[in-house]
Amino acid sequence: MQIYIHFYYSQRKIYKKSFRKFAAIILVMNLIIDAGNTFVKFAVFQQHTIVAKKSVILDEFLKTYKKVLKKYTDIERCIISSVGSLGKKEVDAVKNDLDVLMLDYKTQLPFKNVYSTPKTLGVDRMALVSASVDQFPNNNVLIIDAGTCITYDFITSKNEYLGGAISPGIRLRYKSLHNLTANLPLLDTEEPENIVGNSTHKSIHSGVINGVLKEIDGNIDEYKEKYSDLTVILTGGDTKFLSNQLKNSIFANSNFLLEGLNFILEFNSN
Amino acid sequence: MQIYIHFYYSQRKIYKKSFRKFAAIILVMNLIIDAGNTFVKFAVFQQHTIVAKKSVILDEFLKTYKKVLKKYTDIERCIISSVGSLGKKEVDAVKNDLDVLMLDYKTQLPFKNVYSTPKTLGVDRMALVSASVDQFPNNNVLIIDAGTCITYDFITSKNEYLGGAISPGIRLRYKSLHNLTANLPLLDTEEPENIVGNSTHKSIHSGVINGVLKEIDGNIDEYKEKYSDLTVILTGGDTKFLSNQLKNSIFANSNFLLEGLNFILEFNSN
Repeated sequence: MQIYIHFYYSQRKIYKKSFRKFAAIILVMNLIIDAGNTFVKFAVFQQHTIVAKKSVILDEFLKTYKKVLKKYTDIERCIISSVGSLGKKEVDAVKNDLDVLMLDYKTQLPFKNVYSTPKTLGVDRMALVSASVDQFPNNNVLIIDAGTCITYDFITSKNEYLGGAISPGIRLRYKSLHNLTANLPLLDTEEPENIVGNSTHKSIHSGVINGVLKEIDGNIDEYKEKYSDLTVILTGGDTKFLSNQLKNSIFANSNFLLEGLNFILEFNSN
Repeated sequence: MQIYIHFYYSQRKIYKKSFRKFAAIILVMNLIIDAGNTFVKFAVFQQHTIVAKKSVILDEFLKTYKKVLKKYTDIERCIISSVGSLGKKEVDAVKNDLDVLMLDYKTQLPFKNVYSTPKTLGVDRMALVSASVDQFPNNNVLIIDAGTCITYDFITSKNEYLGGAISPGIRLRYKSLHNLTANLPLLDTEEPENIVGNSTHKSIHSGVINGVLKEIDGNIDEYKEKYSDLTVILTGGDTKFLSNQLKNSIFANSNFLLEGLNFILEFNSN
């Protein structure tokens, strides 16, 4: 009987200890900062779950950062992914408050990078591939990120990142038609009614949007021919706009990059 | 016998007269001026044949124009097609020497234009459709002009121009990736080795070039589904670069726009 009592108490102790540890894991929050070409995204993660997300223009970085930190007092760690757009002042402000992992080519990643120029691999692409490793292990995965640029990233079922492609995103195409030619208007993104546009505006919408759709579907088709059992993820700001217009079936996940950054932070913390 | 001699002489007269008329048609030359966003093209036509062609930057317009006129003294008529890039000074200089047809929305065209905004239809697109009417009458024709922009123009077998699409051309895509993002390099056009680019440079080449190819092939496929017996013409500065890389069979003709302008000039002269 004594033995049993002793066992009961020791177990309780262990339970208590574990619970404290478990609670700590639960409570520690990660701040994810993803600074793109135009916007900066803040996301607060509790383990694998996003509890808050905010996107602002780069100029509003510090103001927003302070608000986020004030509201989520359990944030202890942070990962910063910047395509070169975030200044030293901003980065230093974060380093002053939190344990910061600056994502760059020296960061340990959860996959084998066979990119011939790993130093020039974009931080956003590192994050996307990491998310794929976390969520679709042992799959041939093509990740399409439709944002300012459209990036294509391919990782094999053997966890090897091979590379991909970079093309101009939807807004960039509209802008280039206006900024870099003599007399075409700048239009807002709009789904074309028909492949044959019967006005200059409709011709531009058909050219840009159908062009992007044919490009994405065409690339998926070529990857499918080469790699069997292909999983395709669509992410980025234009995910919602594009996903229903594509012929191929894809997984749409607007948070894929943020989830990848959170995974890299976890991977480097453990 | 007398009858025969008389016949001989009268026939000779007719021959002589006809020959003079024929010689006049042969000798009259047309000057075609096609001012694009970056370059201006000069072409000298004798009937349906190009006898000379020159492309220079816009700044060298007057110098080149004078040289052409000096060399080809039989030039009498001229058509000017400008996307808005040619100044009044340049146009007036030509008007001073030659009969000039300024191509615009008021010009009589050899097809029915059902474009909802005919005043905004680009002059280059008018020329391409006219060439199609001349060379492929009674055909469903898709004309793809791969230059600064990629324009798609569709004319039915019933001689009705329906419209098309406008998307950024190859150079515009390379430029937009560099000019409108934070840290991507400006690259020269290069055929990608593989759909999976394993460096930033190769990723950009794959993204831009494969993107353009998938877009063009995808658009041709969709037109083919909708319109039977489709003839596809590929023209513009990137014709040679693209034609062998496309999956669909096309007619490649770099002079299609110039031939269309010459046809519009003939059509309005008769």
